Amino acid sequence: MNDDLTALSARIESGEVSPVEVMEALLTRIAKLDPAVMAYEWLNPAALAEADRCTQELTQGLRRGPLHGVPIAVKDNYLTADMPTTAGSRAPGYTFANEDSAAVARLRAAGAVLIGKTRTHEFAWGTETPPTRNPWDPSRIPGGSSGGSGAALAARMAYGALGSDTGGSIRIPASLCGVVGLKPTFGRVSRAGIVPHSWSLDHAGPLALSVRDAALLLNVLAGHDVRDPGSAAVSVPDYTASLNDGIAGMRIGVCRNHFFGENEAEVEAQVEHAIADLAGLGAQVVDFEVPNLKYGLGAIFAIELASSSAYHDRGLQRGASAAMADDVRTLVEIGRMVSASDYLKAEQLRASLIEDFKCVLERIDVVVVPASPVTAWQRGQTTVVTGGKEESPLAASWRHTYPFNLTGLPALSLPCGFDSRGLPIGLQIAGKPFDETTILRVARTYEGVHKWNEMRSPLATSIQP
Amino acid sequence: MNDDLTALSARIESGEVSPVEVMEALLTRIAKLDPAVMAYEWLNPAALAEADRCTQELTQGLRRGPLHGVPIAVKDNYLTADMPTTAGSRAPGYTFANEDSAAVARLRAAGAVLIGKTRTHEFAWGTETPPTRNPWDPSRIPGGSSGGSGAALAARMAYGALGSDTGGSIRIPASLCGVVGLKPTFGRVSRAGIVPHSWSLDHAGPLALSVRDAALLLNVLAGHDVRDPGSAAVSVPDYTASLNDGIAGMRIGVCRNHFFGENEAEVEAQVEHAIADLAGLGAQVVDFEVPNLKYGLGAIFAIELASSSAYHDRGLQRGASAAMADDVRTLVEIGRMVSASDYLKAEQLRASLIEDFKCVLERIDVVVVPASPVTAWQRGQTTVVTGGKEESPLAASWRHTYPFNLTGLPALSLPCGFDSRGLPIGLQIAGKPFDETTILRVARTYEGVHKWNEMRSPLATSIQP
Repeated sequence: MNDDLTALSARIESGEVSPVEVMEALLTRIAKLDPAVMAYEWLNPAALAEADRCTQELTQGLRRGPLHGVPIAVKDNYLTADMPTTAGSRAPGYTFANEDSAAVARLRAAGAVLIGKTRTHEFAWGTETPPTRNPWDPSRIPGGSSGGSGAALAARMAYGALGSDTGGSIRIPASLCGVVGLKPTFGRVSRAGIVPHSWSLDHAGPLALSVRDAALLLNVLAGHDVRDPGSAAVSVPDYTASLNDGIAGMRIGVCRNHFFGENEAEVEAQVEHAIADLAGLGAQVVDFEVPNLKYGLGAIFAIELASSSAYHDRGLQRGASAAMADDVRTLVEIGRMVSASDYLKAEQLRASLIEDFKCVLERIDVVVVPASPVTAWQRGQTTVVTGGKEESPLAASWRHTYPFNLTGLPALSLPCGFDSRGLPIGLQIAGKPFDETTILRVARTYEGVHKWNEMRSPLATSIQP
Repeated sequence: MNDDLTALSARIESGEVSPVEVMEALLTRIAKLDPAVMAYEWLNPAALAEADRCTQELTQGLRRGPLHGVPIAVKDNYLTADMPTTAGSRAPGYTFANEDSAAVARLRAAGAVLIGKTRTHEFAWGTETPPTRNPWDPSRIPGGSSGGSGAALAARMAYGALGSDTGGSIRIPASLCGVVGLKPTFGRVSRAGIVPHSWSLDHAGPLALSVRDAALLLNVLAGHDVRDPGSAAVSVPDYTASLNDGIAGMRIGVCRNHFFGENEAEVEAQVEHAIADLAGLGAQVVDFEVPNLKYGLGAIFAIELASSSAYHDRGLQRGASAAMADDVRTLVEIGRMVSASDYLKAEQLRASLIEDFKCVLERIDVVVVPASPVTAWQRGQTTVVTGGKEESPLAASWRHTYPFNLTGLPALSLPCGFDSRGLPIGLQIAGKPFDETTILRVARTYEGVHKWNEMRSPLATSIQP
């Protein structure tokens, strides 16, 4: 049985369950599961009261839309008026306003009920999200930096969640936790009120239990906002409208360099299966290469390190980094050593990459590649084997996601199977600027056949709903 | 008698003089004067042959436009197919292609005859242009970095010239040499084929003997060019169309902070006179302030240093800077020390300044301020007195010009009088993006009354034409 946001929304609309009943059941579930998962930083003390208000509105005939009365989790780097924000850090000298970020305000206006704030890797600077556990195997990390949101969904402790993605922080935990994660086009969803990481790479977007859920969330989140200088004044379609139109005749591009040959063997095999499945569903598969991708890592590292350190500059001057975790302190401090000259060269490479993908996307509709070279690794694990060679899981984890932060292109991860340890594998679908519609359509077509998203993690099934 | 490009063009069109006769007279003049002025790095060996071709075309009934047969000088950082390019440097390891820059190609297609390449401060990194002398007083510098172009015009050794402007390098020599200099809007004139200095600040544009000449040159130079990533696809009007429409009712803004109070006394007095004159010609004068300008110097310095060092990075690695002049070597080498974090903060300040001027320009038509706080200083002079205090002439020289490089707004300098030493004073008129038309109209209205541009420098009058 599907238990996604779409299904819940229908049950609320029909009166089968009330928002209060949903929230009571969910809070009970969180109380039982979250001590093991540690997905939540804070729970919303007003969650039940808000669910009650939603219930009363329904009895008065007011339903705000598909999210009405639906519990949603918020990554703890989105400002919230009624809960503190930590961005995963205990470093002193940072004060975060008690006001709603743009995305949170949009969710509230659409009738969603905020359950709480999910854990993030400190200042969104990492892909592990300690101390959160992966519900598919609690000895493993959930990915990051939106690891709390991914784990909350995989444990069915939320019906949708907000994440942010600077180098893969929505898609990596989505891939490792077996849920759907969508990084929309740069400028599509306002970042106003999100603690900045790297402004030209930061994206806001949803994690969800199904492709349709992601479309419903994007319908609410997308739109222009003058408070975000990167926001685009582009009209917002109904992202659910063509979900079920199929992919017959669609041109699916597979970027054969960079994304293949350096994955865990089972990941690569399963992604190749998925590409073959898409061909079987009527798509035409087109291989291509983007040689400049070999310079991408240097470029994003220079840009991300420099931008992060620019944001943290005052904190660093006050000695705040002493209280940061070792990995984050190192990154924030070495960011000060990036020269402006190198930064400019990184931006020039980025401009070339954007142009390369623009040319490619004139002949294809979407790009399909793995979301992550690896499945969830053990806490403390320092090596993984990709393409027959050992490397650090941290280095591997963002290899397939950061190209779409550099280019700003929309990209989604959805489950496409499991490895022999039972860990989820993610398929990444990227597309043209502001064409999330086509990405969602391809993803939904695949999901409609394979239904990997309906598989439940061991922790999710460890208690009755 | 006016001897500008407009007048010459009419004499060529009427057949009163032929392009060959014009070029012969000019080359004779240059042979007599340039040993003292040192404006030219190279003369075009084909200048007479090209003038001859223009003459033959005229006898065949072909006139390419107002520039047909008109001798034009080119700053030596524009690539040219038929002359070497040095960018004012003897540093090894730089090779400049023998091909025409976009602006040079446009001039040739419009029938202009290239006289030669004018001297520039090494790599356009300075405001003195050694060894060129100022025709108003050969013991003084001509300004820079387009000092050769300014001096060539002031000595009547050209009828128009190309310059480039990163922090004021067209407007400063125009101001100090008593000619017209126009830095168009960022994106208006292609920089393809110009040796880069700082790509986000670099502008190409003309120096001229009158406002109408500047409009005629911009008519030819303006337009979109895909080879310049900063080029804008904005339509090109006829910039001469409304030159004589007057300024009755126009709103002229005077930015009272930053641009006033720290000028040589005679400069400030003469600019105030000019503002009063514009009011007398029917304009409404509106004072305003832009407080963020006090952070502008740090911002442009960070951006310019960083971008210049990014361009020179390979040369620096090969030790090329050892052969650079002391001042330029220092700047190029300290540029490596600008951090990316500081660069990003500079870009953020720049974005604020652009927004500030955008708001101001919603209520006014143009901004009128001094072009330079000082008139031409002595070679080797290390202090000037501005606002009653001593400062370095180099530090003072670009104070009023660089804000319009940071903001990308179009700005023009035209003569507005002389100090008691007989040195020209420049009035700067800036405007809205891509509204060079209004700037030229205000400038022409002022020039039509005062005719400062028709005054001849002592060197220009030292020999008969």
